[in-house]
Amino acid sequence: MNPERVRERIEELFALAPDPRGGATRLAYSPEEARAMRLVAGWLEEAGLRARLDRFGNLWGLPATAGWFVTSGSHVDTVPNGGRLDGALGTVLAVEAAGELGGRFGVLVCAGEEAPRFGAGTLGSRQLAGRLGEAELARMRDAGGISALAAREEFLGLLPEIPRLEEPDPLSRVAAHLEVHVEQRRGLRGEGASVGVVTAVAGPARYRLRFTGESGHSGEARMRERRDALCAAAEVILLAESLARKAAATVATVATVAAEPGSITAVPGRVELGLDVRGADLGEREELVRLLLERGREICARRGVGFTHRCLSRSEPVALDERVVELAERVARAEGIPARRCISYAGHDAQHLAGRLPAALLFAASSNGVSHAPGEEMEKGDLENACRMAAALLQALESEYGGER
Amino acid sequence: MNPERVRERIEELFALAPDPRGGATRLAYSPEEARAMRLVAGWLEEAGLRARLDRFGNLWGLPATAGWFVTSGSHVDTVPNGGRLDGALGTVLAVEAAGELGGRFGVLVCAGEEAPRFGAGTLGSRQLAGRLGEAELARMRDAGGISALAAREEFLGLLPEIPRLEEPDPLSRVAAHLEVHVEQRRGLRGEGASVGVVTAVAGPARYRLRFTGESGHSGEARMRERRDALCAAAEVILLAESLARKAAATVATVATVAAEPGSITAVPGRVELGLDVRGADLGEREELVRLLLERGREICARRGVGFTHRCLSRSEPVALDERVVELAERVARAEGIPARRCISYAGHDAQHLAGRLPAALLFAASSNGVSHAPGEEMEKGDLENACRMAAALLQALESEYGGER
Repeated sequence: MNPERVRERIEELFALAPDPRGGATRLAYSPEEARAMRLVAGWLEEAGLRARLDRFGNLWGLPATAGWFVTSGSHVDTVPNGGRLDGALGTVLAVEAAGELGGRFGVLVCAGEEAPRFGAGTLGSRQLAGRLGEAELARMRDAGGISALAAREEFLGLLPEIPRLEEPDPLSRVAAHLEVHVEQRRGLRGEGASVGVVTAVAGPARYRLRFTGESGHSGEARMRERRDALCAAAEVILLAESLARKAAATVATVATVAAEPGSITAVPGRVELGLDVRGADLGEREELVRLLLERGREICARRGVGFTHRCLSRSEPVALDERVVELAERVARAEGIPARRCISYAGHDAQHLAGRLPAALLFAASSNGVSHAPGEEMEKGDLENACRMAAALLQALESEYGGER
Repeated sequence: MNPERVRERIEELFALAPDPRGGATRLAYSPEEARAMRLVAGWLEEAGLRARLDRFGNLWGLPATAGWFVTSGSHVDTVPNGGRLDGALGTVLAVEAAGELGGRFGVLVCAGEEAPRFGAGTLGSRQLAGRLGEAELARMRDAGGISALAAREEFLGLLPEIPRLEEPDPLSRVAAHLEVHVEQRRGLRGEGASVGVVTAVAGPARYRLRFTGESGHSGEARMRERRDALCAAAEVILLAESLARKAAATVATVATVAAEPGSITAVPGRVELGLDVRGADLGEREELVRLLLERGREICARRGVGFTHRCLSRSEPVALDERVVELAERVARAEGIPARRCISYAGHDAQHLAGRLPAALLFAASSNGVSHAPGEEMEKGDLENACRMAAALLQALESEYGGER
């Protein structure tokens, strides 16, 4: 695989829908995602694969051969003002590997992986894996009130030139799948690794925490008589940070805050916080949330502030197949590529496909930890390693799992 | 003075511009404040005074007699959805006292006392005292972009039936002034007092505090590598509370908070807090702010978060004349009304008039501490005491200061 050409194609995708703020914007099921799919479909045909679109908007590159095959791929949609590598790296590596390896490997580019537009991502892979139905898609709305279902149908309508995949269950022919994704933190390079082999994907649990104190005049309300909702919330913000700092594999973020009445002359009487807690270890995550709520209640009771919580969403962590992980480690050793096991704290398509077939998720080292922003970057050597690793692991997956079909 | 009639007139004012949320809304220089001024002008004429409007929108009730006179009064504008007593109590007491005392006392109802519409209150009294000029009024804007100067002219235009006061400096004829205001906290009754004699008015200093950290993925950003602006801000919120709890006569409120990017999947990278600090002791207030900024810088340096502050406004505390305070105490003792000295942490018209003449500010005990909200209330006995105290103190001010004119 030619890393120069991989880099060129990544830049071609990046330039397709530039954002004035310096990045790229190709939202889930948007005309920009459709343009990216069309570009990749052309590459698939060049690589000797047949480009097909399934009814969920996922783009397939099918080998000419009949029967089972191993796929790889990622996604081509982005967050608003996203970077050049997220999704694009794995997509281009998949196309190039399939071409180089003689057209017997498939490509699967999943639609609508990023969450911002509809508040929930991995749309294409979850539908494909049978985990997201049309009723739920119809309920998901973007800021303009368009449902994910309507956006999907419009998206499909924008790509009439790509033939439809008619198989009722396209995954049934796939023996194994590989997703390569750029790392989304500063991690691998600091530990001397070029590639990360993901063993588990953390599940997020999201809560709305509500603090009801008492407003009052910011001059006349005495300090010792106040029931200041923002002071109570500040204690809980720091508690969440402190609990997560002590946890082994759980992170917690108070990401949003709103205080009422929001006037400089009034003590805040009501505050709402948005909390995101993620961990690969469900037990640890649940214990952190339990402690946070218990101590939060104590803090608020001491302050005379009402405290309620509501769970907005809760996903289970996904452990990836140990056999796949060990295979990836063997391949890295054989190729002389420094690799280490890691956890993904963000969601990816591979975790949903893993429910149906052996799926590997590899991280390629980021040079700066930047993610979901224009500055996403990786070093030349790491890109070369990612190319070699993708090609070698695809062949290993074929040897390992092909016999089982 | 008849407390029943005082209560009836307070309710008449309250009913003039009801707010659907249960209170009254008569914003500064609004048509609703004009309606209230018109109602009071009618009461003034009934009481045998001549109603006049000065060029700042203040309503005067002039005695028929020539030469100096003692005034009392408060204001008739309200915060949005305000209560029945704030401003109204002192206004009605002034009208009733002037009527009962035979028309030799004046009434002064100051315009635009409440801050919310233009972000700064006591508009009428500050103009009258020569402390607020037209240039500054022209810069103050409400949410609709209307300047306080334009609103004032529109307000004056709504009241053509009230003759204009032509004296270039109406305050030069006033020997002394009394403002009675309902207490804005739970204070007097708990200490066995019915009336508070205000010795000083705290000055507010307002700051915008800005925290600049680094945003990142709420899953992938490692706890120990984060530069979370909201966590830094939370420490400063609690620091402000802790410093103010230790202070003798200073309160501090973090009243507003905004965090960016404000997405549940992102670590807050930037936070702005709005801080209000008030104290009757300027040295203590300044020391609190100095410590808060110094320790805030330390907190942020430790967290790798940028910290800047900007002073939005700074008023000096005002000490009221000790001779006036002692006179009020003597009057309370003579009347058998339990009174105690206190500080006002909110601004009032009397503090600005005090720069020009002897001015007394009395608080009438609140039954529940509610202020700037529909539930403002006081007990019957405290209203009776306020009536007696107002009439007696007006006469004492006349005896004490009349001879000096």
